[in-house]
Amino acid sequence: MRIAIDAMGGDEAPRAVVDGALVAARRLGAGLILAGERDAIAAELSRHPGTRTLALEICHTPDAIAMDEPPAAALRRKPRASIRVAADAVANGRASALFSAGNTGATVMAAHAALGMLPGVDRPALGVTIPTRRGSAVLLDAGANVECRPQHLVQFAAMGRVFARVALRLAEPRVGLLSIGEEETKGTDLVRETHRLLKPSPHFAGNVEARDVYAGDADVIVCDGFTGNVALKISEGLVETVESLLHEELSQTFSTRVGYLLSRRAFRQFRKRVDYSEYGGAPLLGVAGVCIVGHGRSSPKAVRNAVAMAHRFAAEGLLERIRAEIAASA
Amino acid sequence: MRIAIDAMGGDEAPRAVVDGALVAARRLGAGLILAGERDAIAAELSRHPGTRTLALEICHTPDAIAMDEPPAAALRRKPRASIRVAADAVANGRASALFSAGNTGATVMAAHAALGMLPGVDRPALGVTIPTRRGSAVLLDAGANVECRPQHLVQFAAMGRVFARVALRLAEPRVGLLSIGEEETKGTDLVRETHRLLKPSPHFAGNVEARDVYAGDADVIVCDGFTGNVALKISEGLVETVESLLHEELSQTFSTRVGYLLSRRAFRQFRKRVDYSEYGGAPLLGVAGVCIVGHGRSSPKAVRNAVAMAHRFAAEGLLERIRAEIAASA
Repeated sequence: MRIAIDAMGGDEAPRAVVDGALVAARRLGAGLILAGERDAIAAELSRHPGTRTLALEICHTPDAIAMDEPPAAALRRKPRASIRVAADAVANGRASALFSAGNTGATVMAAHAALGMLPGVDRPALGVTIPTRRGSAVLLDAGANVECRPQHLVQFAAMGRVFARVALRLAEPRVGLLSIGEEETKGTDLVRETHRLLKPSPHFAGNVEARDVYAGDADVIVCDGFTGNVALKISEGLVETVESLLHEELSQTFSTRVGYLLSRRAFRQFRKRVDYSEYGGAPLLGVAGVCIVGHGRSSPKAVRNAVAMAHRFAAEGLLERIRAEIAASA
Repeated sequence: MRIAIDAMGGDEAPRAVVDGALVAARRLGAGLILAGERDAIAAELSRHPGTRTLALEICHTPDAIAMDEPPAAALRRKPRASIRVAADAVANGRASALFSAGNTGATVMAAHAALGMLPGVDRPALGVTIPTRRGSAVLLDAGANVECRPQHLVQFAAMGRVFARVALRLAEPRVGLLSIGEEETKGTDLVRETHRLLKPSPHFAGNVEARDVYAGDADVIVCDGFTGNVALKISEGLVETVESLLHEELSQTFSTRVGYLLSRRAFRQFRKRVDYSEYGGAPLLGVAGVCIVGHGRSSPKAVRNAVAMAHRFAAEGLLERIRAEIAASA
C-alpha cells in the first residue's frame, strides 16, 4: 500500500512531515508518494540512513499553499499545489490514502474536488477523536462545513459510527446530538429537526449537552462544523490555559514546587491523554478516498500517528463500510 | 436598596439561597424581598441569629418552577411562581434588582415579561465572566437566545462593553466576534454579516478564534446563544474532566501522591480562578431591570457574590449606561 503525503503542508513542513512519514512507512511496510519541492524533500530524506530500502517516490511540484492563504483562491492560482498533486495520486489509484497537515480548508477542497463524494453523502465532515472520562469518543463535523442542513447531520451520524468502530474498536457506537439541553425541544431549528430524524435509530442516545461531551456518555457526537470547531478549539485553548495557570500556581512556593517535581510524571501522562498528536489526525469522512487531515502544528510523532491512521483506514475498508452504513441508514 | 430574590430557585434552594443572600444583605446594608414558600423561608431564616436588624420581607407564594420544567408551559400554569413574584417586585419598583438561581429559561422569560426591554435592544443576552490568562473577560450571549440575527449581536456588543466596564473595571473594552478563523470571510452567514456591521467601530478587535477565547485578547466576546452556551458548558465539563484525570494520575504512585499533597494549595487556587461561584452570576442584559441569573448549583458563596453583583449593577446605573451605549452605537 502507498500513502500520498503533502510534504509541504504544516508549520514544520517539510521536515516534521518527512520525519514522521518515514517512521510510519518503515513500521507499516508501506510506500510513500511525497508531493512537494524535490530538493527540499530530498534534503530531508538525506538526513535519514537506509531510506533506499523503502518504496519512496517524490512527485515534484514547486507550488504549495500557505497555512493562511484563502483556500479557494489559492487552489485556483496554484493548479500544481502539493496538496493537489497528493490528492490526485489517490484519485488515479496510485495511492490508497492521503495525508496533509497543511491549510485545512485547502485540503478539504482539494480532496473533495479530486476524489468526489461517496454515494448518499452530500457533504464531507472532519472527524476528530476526543478523550473522555470513559475512554475516547469521536466528534464530527469539526469544521469542514460551516452551514449544515439536518440531512447532513444524519449522514455525519452514520459516518461517525463507522469511524468509531474502526478507530475506537467499538461494536455498537452510540450517537449523541450536541445541544444546549437534553430535551428534544432544546437547540436551534437545525438541532431540533435533526433530533426528529435521528430519533427512530436504535443507536441514537439523544441530545448531549456540551458539559457532558467529555463525560463519555455518547461515542459519536454530531454537530455542524461551526459549533464543532468552536467546541474543539475552545477546549484546546482551555487546556493550554489550565496548564499555564496551574504552572503559575505550582511555582509559587517551595512546597508546591517540590510537589510539582514529584507529580511531573502524572502531568506528562495527563498531557498525553489530552494531546491531539497521540491521535494523529482527523479523517475527512464522506469523500471517495481515505484522507487524513493533520493539525497545522503536527510534530513528527503526530504525522507518524496520522499516517498510521490513514494506512489502517485504507486497510480496513473504511470507504466500503461508510457506503454500507449510509445505505443501511437511508 | 432592596434586592428581590427567588428563594425557591436552584438545586439547594431555599437553604443555599437564603444563606448566601443574608450574608450579602448584611455586608451591603441592603434589604431583601424573599419570594417563595413562607414557612420554608422562615425555617431557613430562623437558623440565622440577628436577622431582625435586616430589612427582610417574605413574599409568600406556594408555587415554584422546577429546574427541569419546560419554562413557557410552567409559567403559564403557575402565574404565582416565585420567580414571577420576584420579577414583579422589580417591575413595580419595590426592589432595584432581581436574583434567581432557578430554571434559567423561566427566569429569562419571567424577567422579559415583567420588565420589558430597554429601548433599542431587541433581545436579552446572558453575560458571563470568564477567566483568561490576562485576567477576565465577558462573553455573551451565554444562552438566552438560540437563534440570533446580526443586529442582535451588534446590540450584544454594546451591552457587553458596559458589562465589562462595570464588572471588570475596564475603561475601553475591546470587542471580539467568536468565529472559526480570524479572517472576516470565516464563519457562518450570521458571523460574517455581524463582522461587517461591527467593523466600523473603533472598539472592534475582529474575529476571535475559539482557541484564543481564554488567551484574553478581547475583553468582550460576542456570539449567538447556542454557540455561547456550547462554548461555556464544554469548558465547564472539560475543567471537571481535567481535574478528574489529573487526580487519577496523581494517585498512581507514592511520589505523585506526596506531590499532590504538597501542591494541593496550588490546585485550590487554580480551582478558584476557574470557579463560576467566584463570579456569582450572569446578568441578563437588555431587559429594563437589573437581573442576575445564578448557576443552578449555586452554593451560598455563589449566591452571596451574585447578590453583591446585583447590588453593584443597580448602584452603578447599569441600565442607564446600557441605554446610553446603545444610543451611541446606533
